[in-house]
Amino acid sequence: MGQVVTFGEVLMRISPRGNKKFIQSNVIEFFFGGTELNVGISIANFGGNVKHISAVSSDFIGGAAISYINKFGVDTTSIVRSNRPLGVYFLEVGAVMRSSTISYNRAYSSFSEIQPAMVNWEAALVDGDWLHWTGITPALSQGAFDVLKEGLTLARQKGISVSADPTYRKDLWKYGKDPKEALIELLHLSSIFIGGINEINEVLGTNYSYSNDDFIEASKLLMEKFPSIEKVFDKIRTSLNSSWHKIRARMWNGKAFKETEDLDITHIVDRIGTGDAFAAGLIYGLQRYDDYKAMHFACAACAMKHTYEGDVNLATVKEVTEIIEGNTSGRLNR
Amino acid sequence: MGQVVTFGEVLMRISPRGNKKFIQSNVIEFFFGGTELNVGISIANFGGNVKHISAVSSDFIGGAAISYINKFGVDTTSIVRSNRPLGVYFLEVGAVMRSSTISYNRAYSSFSEIQPAMVNWEAALVDGDWLHWTGITPALSQGAFDVLKEGLTLARQKGISVSADPTYRKDLWKYGKDPKEALIELLHLSSIFIGGINEINEVLGTNYSYSNDDFIEASKLLMEKFPSIEKVFDKIRTSLNSSWHKIRARMWNGKAFKETEDLDITHIVDRIGTGDAFAAGLIYGLQRYDDYKAMHFACAACAMKHTYEGDVNLATVKEVTEIIEGNTSGRLNR
Amino acid sequence: MGQVVTFGEVLMRISPRGNKKFIQSNVIEFFFGGTELNVGISIANFGGNVKHISAVSSDFIGGAAISYINKFGVDTTSIVRSNRPLGVYFLEVGAVMRSSTISYNRAYSSFSEIQPAMVNWEAALVDGDWLHWTGITPALSQGAFDVLKEGLTLARQKGISVSADPTYRKDLWKYGKDPKEALIELLHLSSIFIGGINEINEVLGTNYSYSNDDFIEASKLLMEKFPSIEKVFDKIRTSLNSSWHKIRARMWNGKAFKETEDLDITHIVDRIGTGDAFAAGLIYGLQRYDDYKAMHFACAACAMKHTYEGDVNLATVKEVTEIIEGNTSGRLNR
Amino acid sequence: MGQVVTFGEVLMRISPRGNKKFIQSNVIEFFFGGTELNVGISIANFGGNVKHISAVSSDFIGGAAISYINKFGVDTTSIVRSNRPLGVYFLEVGAVMRSSTISYNRAYSSFSEIQPAMVNWEAALVDGDWLHWTGITPALSQGAFDVLKEGLTLARQKGISVSADPTYRKDLWKYGKDPKEALIELLHLSSIFIGGINEINEVLGTNYSYSNDDFIEASKLLMEKFPSIEKVFDKIRTSLNSSWHKIRARMWNGKAFKETEDLDITHIVDRIGTGDAFAAGLIYGLQRYDDYKAMHFACAACAMKHTYEGDVNLATVKEVTEIIEGNTSGRLNR
Amino acid sequence: MGQVVTFGEVLMRISPRGNKKFIQSNVIEFFFGGTELNVGISIANFGGNVKHISAVSSDFIGGAAISYINKFGVDTTSIVRSNRPLGVYFLEVGAVMRSSTISYNRAYSSFSEIQPAMVNWEAALVDGDWLHWTGITPALSQGAFDVLKEGLTLARQKGISVSADPTYRKDLWKYGKDPKEALIELLHLSSIFIGGINEINEVLGTNYSYSNDDFIEASKLLMEKFPSIEKVFDKIRTSLNSSWHKIRARMWNGKAFKETEDLDITHIVDRIGTGDAFAAGLIYGLQRYDDYKAMHFACAACAMKHTYEGDVNLATVKEVTEIIEGNTSGRLNR
Amino acid sequence: MGQVVTFGEVLMRISPRGNKKFIQSNVIEFFFGGTELNVGISIANFGGNVKHISAVSSDFIGGAAISYINKFGVDTTSIVRSNRPLGVYFLEVGAVMRSSTISYNRAYSSFSEIQPAMVNWEAALVDGDWLHWTGITPALSQGAFDVLKEGLTLARQKGISVSADPTYRKDLWKYGKDPKEALIELLHLSSIFIGGINEINEVLGTNYSYSNDDFIEASKLLMEKFPSIEKVFDKIRTSLNSSWHKIRARMWNGKAFKETEDLDITHIVDRIGTGDAFAAGLIYGLQRYDDYKAMHFACAACAMKHTYEGDVNLATVKEVTEIIEGNTSGRLNR
Repeated sequence: MGQVVTFGEVLMRISPRGNKKFIQSNVIEFFFGGTELNVGISIANFGGNVKHISAVSSDFIGGAAISYINKFGVDTTSIVRSNRPLGVYFLEVGAVMRSSTISYNRAYSSFSEIQPAMVNWEAALVDGDWLHWTGITPALSQGAFDVLKEGLTLARQKGISVSADPTYRKDLWKYGKDPKEALIELLHLSSIFIGGINEINEVLGTNYSYSNDDFIEASKLLMEKFPSIEKVFDKIRTSLNSSWHKIRARMWNGKAFKETEDLDITHIVDRIGTGDAFAAGLIYGLQRYDDYKAMHFACAACAMKHTYEGDVNLATVKEVTEIIEGNTSGRLNR
Repeated sequence: MGQVVTFGEVLMRISPRGNKKFIQSNVIEFFFGGTELNVGISIANFGGNVKHISAVSSDFIGGAAISYINKFGVDTTSIVRSNRPLGVYFLEVGAVMRSSTISYNRAYSSFSEIQPAMVNWEAALVDGDWLHWTGITPALSQGAFDVLKEGLTLARQKGISVSADPTYRKDLWKYGKDPKEALIELLHLSSIFIGGINEINEVLGTNYSYSNDDFIEASKLLMEKFPSIEKVFDKIRTSLNSSWHKIRARMWNGKAFKETEDLDITHIVDRIGTGDAFAAGLIYGLQRYDDYKAMHFACAACAMKHTYEGDVNLATVKEVTEIIEGNTSGRLNR
Repeated sequence: MGQVVTFGEVLMRISPRGNKKFIQSNVIEFFFGGTELNVGISIANFGGNVKHISAVSSDFIGGAAISYINKFGVDTTSIVRSNRPLGVYFLEVGAVMRSSTISYNRAYSSFSEIQPAMVNWEAALVDGDWLHWTGITPALSQGAFDVLKEGLTLARQKGISVSADPTYRKDLWKYGKDPKEALIELLHLSSIFIGGINEINEVLGTNYSYSNDDFIEASKLLMEKFPSIEKVFDKIRTSLNSSWHKIRARMWNGKAFKETEDLDITHIVDRIGTGDAFAAGLIYGLQRYDDYKAMHFACAACAMKHTYEGDVNLATVKEVTEIIEGNTSGRLNR
Repeated sequence: MGQVVTFGEVLMRISPRGNKKFIQSNVIEFFFGGTELNVGISIANFGGNVKHISAVSSDFIGGAAISYINKFGVDTTSIVRSNRPLGVYFLEVGAVMRSSTISYNRAYSSFSEIQPAMVNWEAALVDGDWLHWTGITPALSQGAFDVLKEGLTLARQKGISVSADPTYRKDLWKYGKDPKEALIELLHLSSIFIGGINEINEVLGTNYSYSNDDFIEASKLLMEKFPSIEKVFDKIRTSLNSSWHKIRARMWNGKAFKETEDLDITHIVDRIGTGDAFAAGLIYGLQRYDDYKAMHFACAACAMKHTYEGDVNLATVKEVTEIIEGNTSGRLNR
Repeated sequence: MGQVVTFGEVLMRISPRGNKKFIQSNVIEFFFGGTELNVGISIANFGGNVKHISAVSSDFIGGAAISYINKFGVDTTSIVRSNRPLGVYFLEVGAVMRSSTISYNRAYSSFSEIQPAMVNWEAALVDGDWLHWTGITPALSQGAFDVLKEGLTLARQKGISVSADPTYRKDLWKYGKDPKEALIELLHLSSIFIGGINEINEVLGTNYSYSNDDFIEASKLLMEKFPSIEKVFDKIRTSLNSSWHKIRARMWNGKAFKETEDLDITHIVDRIGTGDAFAAGLIYGLQRYDDYKAMHFACAACAMKHTYEGDVNLATVKEVTEIIEGNTSGRLNR
Repeated sequence: MGQVVTFGEVLMRISPRGNKKFIQSNVIEFFFGGTELNVGISIANFGGNVKHISAVSSDFIGGAAISYINKFGVDTTSIVRSNRPLGVYFLEVGAVMRSSTISYNRAYSSFSEIQPAMVNWEAALVDGDWLHWTGITPALSQGAFDVLKEGLTLARQKGISVSADPTYRKDLWKYGKDPKEALIELLHLSSIFIGGINEINEVLGTNYSYSNDDFIEASKLLMEKFPSIEKVFDKIRTSLNSSWHKIRARMWNGKAFKETEDLDITHIVDRIGTGDAFAAGLIYGLQRYDDYKAMHFACAACAMKHTYEGDVNLATVKEVTEIIEGNTSGRLNR
């Protein structure tokens, strides 16, 4: 199976333990993450061959980030070092009706200040079979947009599959580029659309509802406007509160509509990166399974991520497969 | 908005992490608390102007207590130092059907041995708009009772609102004073009654049931016997087990009965101080909102407190307001 | 009340904190445990008189194990030291649909290499009133089987009650002995059978279902084939997921069938050792109460164990009794 | 070898980690200690047979204290439970020129309020061969003095050796008794004096200097005034700063003066309980070795204690013996 | 005594525990610091009246920073909030020949982007008696330089003492301003010079050696060129290695040269902020003592700081005074 | 520069924090190590290209071990998985005169049970330029000896440099092979001898003293008996106590004798793996520098290792080079 390549910012995630706030204790923990990296590491944890491309700081924090990525066997040889600091995000984890809260320190980071000359895409994609991007990267800076577009363009030329998670986060996008235009440019270079009604309405300027019928209509229109897009996958989350969610997924692959049943996640450990776990499961699955099984696998992978601290999914293929086979009782493994 | 003044013991709270017992690990954590202080800090966290009055030890533990209170911007200039140790309480946190357990070391503490000459109430209340007391303070010692009564008397003279949370804890009250008589004396100096059927039955010697009708009757009788009391607020907790509660509130303000719906708290982090969070929300609300909204705000504040470790509510007005607006799904805030 | 004697391996249990995996943090915790020791310590925590017999390493880890057992007031004077290392097990705690996972390092351990000459059973049982064994011990090695059988034989001679928890774990049993034959030999030396349909089918070669009727039939047949067995107790677990279980129990004591209602365990802290907590509650109960109350006590003890980290049940008789009296609301104890 | 009995307060010791102050972190650690208990546990760690007599609280903290003592195999069967809290001390550990600082919460503790009727000395001393007391106990309360005197009197009648460490701490002694008179009464019931010039000057009202000549003269006069005293042992500490001390010892046993060379302790981990480690080494040594070797062993034990966190010496006889044999290079033991 | 006002960046300091590197553990700790804030908090810990002026982020990290400063009783009412993140520094603590290493993430921080309109100096200095600045602030940005200069100018007008610690760190100073010119401008507004030969040579363009004679000559020339400067204080550090330093100080106050003896710091806990502790001791001392005693106090304060984790000196006046009285043996305080 | 290949056991190292013993706290930490792996990782931290060959367990502990090695960029593709557990060692860290103590659980480990068929040496050495072994490996089992010998034989055929650290630990060597004979066989396949008088005397059966003259004579004789050996390097440690060592080195390269001066290591953080850091520095140096500079670099690398927790040296080439240039004052790096 060819290499999955992910491109995006590496962030240091810093948070107090348990449900504490920073005001409560000076003992904290860190992991590294970032939406595209989370996808990459989660695929590597399934046994996939993965490379992550990024720019990290040249200090010991950037070094620790690379070590962290190496730990999971992800290829870090295309990561460049920069004299700007690594982006950081601070997290306070909520519970019940208290929301988790994130504060970012990522403007002017080593990745935000990336420039096209810094990434050698030919070399980076040499073993590439799949390239994954999200809507975070083009939102950060002109440089990040440019480098991403260069990569997607080359990927298309080489016939590499391109998955897009065009998450639109309006607090980013400060460098002047119009978000909608930027996403449209990049979606024309993509083959798999991972997103739902909100994202489709955003790029099409439509007003579809959350119903399955509207989802099918919206997907059809999306694929009409963006002929490169072959399949649309949507993950639907129902939040009872911060500690208890339900997750299901649906898809339109140009031919058929399919959906999964809700997975009930009663005691959430950490919900960061669960969307990335879905994307990772989907990419891993689409490389190996049929569309429905891939979506089912993605949904179970997403559910599993809620049980791990940190940004990345540590579940194995065996563990995820057990869930899609209906074994969600969590029996002790000796 | 004028200053809310709270008066009461500052306790050091010491507990193992998570659900451990002291026999299980030598690594423990501490916070400071105490029922009236919890009310004060919680109001300060809403942005209120708060002063806490107490007596703490003159050693580094008393110093750490004052630092802790300063941290929240609560005025500590009326706290006196004493050569007796600070009171301590040890806590083991339960789960499911296991109760949390508290053991106190507070007799002969710096606060229990407080004497009237130690507190300059004129100075302490100079900016005061509201004075809050609970049934814990008069239970501790003759000195504590005397200092409290002196403060309440002055507050009444100055037209300051007085809220009473006449919690009756029978294991305290060892110094000879009759609890019922003491509470009656102090309630005659109070305007807001924060308590339910049990507390009313205790001071009136009645036998009302928990029904809404009885609550209204009981409140009316209370206000008849204690003409200074203008409003009665009651918080009702339903415990499925140590980890899962429901909270609602009801009120009689002399004119109308109102109640809120249950808030479902499915994954409790720490239930200590949740009653204090209710009182804090109520005082903050009554200073700013109508009675019903104040009670609703108090109820949501109480629910939020279950999600924070330690004695005090760290929720902001914005967070509490979102809950009373019905947003209890705990969406991630970025 | 005479002494309860437990015989079995002492294992060092090592696990990351909370729901972390070993790959995520270098800070970990340890306890000591082992199925028979768990039973012994849990009985000691009820106030029972307990001795544990085992072989532990002669290094500081073995010393720490003995200290740990001493901590609970369990008699360690019959534990022997050996120059082989103590057995270890590594645990990663799951949540929701993620299973907890255990990896053992116990082959060739100080206990596995135990030999008959090492244990002086006459001295060990001098104050003994009850001897408890499980199916783990005979599975480990010929030496462990031999020492156990010698102890059971002497216990029978002395008229000491023998409880058997013939858990069958097929990944053990590598030294050549046929599991079924071994268990049959040992059950003929036992008076109380703690186990369910699976264990009965295993030793009888039958195929009973989980129904109550089949349970009664199976128990009758078991008692016919093993005349020494007087009573059969079965614990039934329903797993919603790793974090939420239900527990109930049933019994056939040769005369009557009885069962308890489900206890709902909504927020599991640690499910290791919950079966041992059942056995401990049962032994403690059978020494003091009638059969049904003993089973009810065992079931509540089992439920309580889910709220403690580590292998052993730290609940007191008072706490367990409250649950069987229906008080499962987990009110705060001050 | 007969049992060494120690009698005195059990204190919970609470301190931040490393060199932090309480104001700096909410994560803290606890151990149990108390000067006489420290002596007892340290002897138990050498393999001695030890019983500790005390009064501890009836809550879970008192329970944890007993568990802690059990851990070291010290007999806790003569410890009584009381409804007063356990004494606590808070510690901030200094370094270099910064002193470590202790704050006590021990007045009115379960031990301070001990009364003669609470201790059954006949039963407590049934296996006793040696009884150890310090000047802390008679300083706490009339009750503590009375219980101690009763025990010493019985010990003398039974011909049990009595070692006295008459440390004089003037901040204690608040209940009215004159310290000098109290110590004189108790020293007349003692056979081994563990103390230096300060303690001798205190009880004799003399003014000896620290010179060896004066030490000999002082010891002779002490033994003249207190005919029960057979030997005097003095430990001399030279403090370069909080992190670097030197320790040596000297003795007069009625016949000869001997002294040891300085042991250089360059990187102190914890200096609490080092005097107790000396006393423990001395008692253990006097039961087994000649006076000089006992003192040498005591001095090495004291030095070793500086390398352990907590109040008690965890060194083994083998480790201490290596030091008196001159092996202080700290080679790695595999 | 009037208020000491400090102005400068607040940084979040994040570091692994002990001597670990970030690559080694995900458990880390944080404090807040920043050279001028360190001075302010250290003076507050002596009991001084202190206000700190800064700009911090409007998120929960900025909130935690303000709480941290409040904790020490420092006035935070002139701190402004900004929508840029708080500056961060990462620290790995060395030992022996391994240097401690710091990596900054402070460019574009909330403080770096401060602008004159943001600080109301009239209000900020209303109770001011002393204003302290360092060479870090003007190095950060034009805005920081401008705000500082505005404050110093007003301070001179109001006759407030101005202390300058013109540390020159050449890695900063990226916004275009010439460091030497900037420092010269600001020194003309200063009365106390805290710095040594390096700093004098830097601003004068001279080449003095470290000898006392050269120090006196250099100081004279400095005071000639900068008539506002009244006194020069120099701290001299001798580093044996990362764990073992010696500290002494010297001064020229226009009339006399004085110097202290070396203080030997054998087991350094944390050397960050030790220069700030010197400045704090000096300012506190100059407000209360003669010049020599102030310098001696400063030197002892600096030495004490090496024993505390974090950026700030937690020593009390009593502790520092004991050192200047020669008591550096670190005796245990009970 | 070609790849350095290391072959040997990977051990999980588990220890309490600071100077605690296992009996004192249930919070512990782990790293991975093993003498040859330590050499490999330390070289990788210098930027060298390294592969480690081993057999680790197939469970999550073996997975965590591989992740740990990956973290440092060491090639793990030749590590095989086995169904035996990973070896473990438990460590209690001493201080001053207290020795650090290690207890191993490594017999029957995944590595000890390695067999020749499991390692494909042709593939493993494909990029190899240097192969390093130590005396631990042949001591473990016949299989380990056989696999090692096979690798060394192939390395010699391919002209790869072979460094030998023939540490002799007599507690190992339990499988029957004569240690001296085994080492002689393997040294005949080695080119660089890293060891001192003890090791030379061991293999030659001689009795040389520690003098430089004897070192030269011994080295000459060694090189005469083992013609493949080209150079001998010896590291000399002087232990003042567990916390304070001095390190120097000497060499005979067939032509010249050279030695370095003592490096004074006053505050040791962790002395495990310091010999491995010497070997790593030597191999890295010999690949790049002249013999003397390589030895000097090795000696400084060894000294630096004493400042890092864990088994491996985290120093960079820049840091080590500063020490050999005489900069050992540990100045703060910003």
